Amino acid sequence: MLARTSGPLTGIVTHLLERPGKRLRPILVILAASLGEADPRAIIHVGAAVELIHLASLVHDDIIDGAKRRRGRPSVAAKWGNHTAVLIGDYLWAQAYMLLTCQAQYGVVGTMSEAIADMCQGELTQLASLYDPSGGEEAYLTRIRLKTASLFAACCRAGAQLAGLDPACTDALADFGLQLGFAFQLKDDVLDFTASARTLGKPVGSDLRRGILTLPALRLLDDSQHGPMLRACLEARRFARGELRRLYKAAQDSGAVTYALQSAGSRLQAARRQLLSLPPAWAREQLLDLVESLAAAYP
Amino acid sequence: MLARTSGPLTGIVTHLLERPGKRLRPILVILAASLGEADPRAIIHVGAAVELIHLASLVHDDIIDGAKRRRGRPSVAAKWGNHTAVLIGDYLWAQAYMLLTCQAQYGVVGTMSEAIADMCQGELTQLASLYDPSGGEEAYLTRIRLKTASLFAACCRAGAQLAGLDPACTDALADFGLQLGFAFQLKDDVLDFTASARTLGKPVGSDLRRGILTLPALRLLDDSQHGPMLRACLEARRFARGELRRLYKAAQDSGAVTYALQSAGSRLQAARRQLLSLPPAWAREQLLDLVESLAAAYP
Repeated sequence: MLARTSGPLTGIVTHLLERPGKRLRPILVILAASLGEADPRAIIHVGAAVELIHLASLVHDDIIDGAKRRRGRPSVAAKWGNHTAVLIGDYLWAQAYMLLTCQAQYGVVGTMSEAIADMCQGELTQLASLYDPSGGEEAYLTRIRLKTASLFAACCRAGAQLAGLDPACTDALADFGLQLGFAFQLKDDVLDFTASARTLGKPVGSDLRRGILTLPALRLLDDSQHGPMLRACLEARRFARGELRRLYKAAQDSGAVTYALQSAGSRLQAARRQLLSLPPAWAREQLLDLVESLAAAYP
Repeated sequence: MLARTSGPLTGIVTHLLERPGKRLRPILVILAASLGEADPRAIIHVGAAVELIHLASLVHDDIIDGAKRRRGRPSVAAKWGNHTAVLIGDYLWAQAYMLLTCQAQYGVVGTMSEAIADMCQGELTQLASLYDPSGGEEAYLTRIRLKTASLFAACCRAGAQLAGLDPACTDALADFGLQLGFAFQLKDDVLDFTASARTLGKPVGSDLRRGILTLPALRLLDDSQHGPMLRACLEARRFARGELRRLYKAAQDSGAVTYALQSAGSRLQAARRQLLSLPPAWAREQLLDLVESLAAAYP
């Protein structure tokens, strides 16, 4: 499937591609590009490239997070070791760029490179602020913009660039992607408080345990009853098992989870508004449907 | 210095850029491009990009090798941890691609992407063949082609592409780079047997201890006196301190080191031949000087 893949790589790449995930990012490229006239081969190359970029970031994230499972099976880091996972991620970056440069315009390569740099900055900022609530909601929103929303925006912008859309439509689509990305990450972070390991395909409740402060946790800090307990755990940089369970329940009971979902809801509303600013088209309706699916999705 | 670098990144990127290294790869780009007419800004962008690509690979290699020192100071992995090092490497890849797409042609981006994919495959193959001498010299040469020589070749090819040289000259330059890269890695591998930690800026004798079989080690396997000892160590996947010292000495005394240096010498001869097939020019003389410097260099 990938060019020049041979030797010890083949088995690992196959392991990764066998569970394809939602392919949300390529869908954004394809639908954005379908709002104008784009070369179908270029769309396919860029769509495949963004999925590889996402996959590379997952492989490296699983090293950083020490995650054992991904998409319901062992992560590359868990199965082949961190060292191999570093190289497989790098290899996937290179393959993604080969696809990007096959057909695409420079603008698209630049858009994607900026999004990748943002992803790295987002993850680094997250790593630098573990157990540290001082930046509050604003710092959290900056982190998720960099680590998630920026790539969603880049997918939409790249699609628009391929289709040669005018600057106003391109910017509207990029902002749609950004808002969708915010909502996606907000909901994903809520899921860590509410889902079961079975539906998630990876361990639940791992964010807080690892010191990653998402919006429900930050909101819970203001809760008069459970805020002090959470603050004490963060200062100690550890959670007892019973404490974690109580904090999850408190996040749901206190309205902290609802607050985060409302924040996701306003992002989805902003995403809808951007789409409705575009001329009516089949692809626009598909993107609106995508917003509605995310709105209706968990929890 | 790098676009969009802020927050926790700044200190780490500064740490990396303060010890610039030899900058051999950008020199290859610049000299190859100087054999024709290239836009100076494009040369600078591509030259900077290849150095960042090299730097990214070093940062990731230091995770894989568990290396504590690099260029006479702590490696990023040692100073900030493996997790940060994964992200810093990724960030440098993205910055390199931003530079490549600033000015350069598609051809150059493709050339570099293929070289990066080769580097990853080379490192993966090395990781998969630790302590395993079965592939012999041929497998070793494939590994160093992928992990080192391919990027050297890509630097020369990219320079030629920027300068718009004809296909014959472009291929000759790329093969020159390939041969130079082979010689460079062969000599670097010998250095592990002969240098002191002081001149190397990183621990000596670490290849063999970590199970990486370079040409002197592979050659030593055929030595009637020390081959069996080396083979036994490889089977046990460990070396006692005294054994390592004796094996290093044996590699020098038995001619195994000389054999590897002769192999480097023939590669340098092939590199010279390719250069002499090009029309005389100032840049060609500079490249020839570079070959002579490497020929005269250690040990």
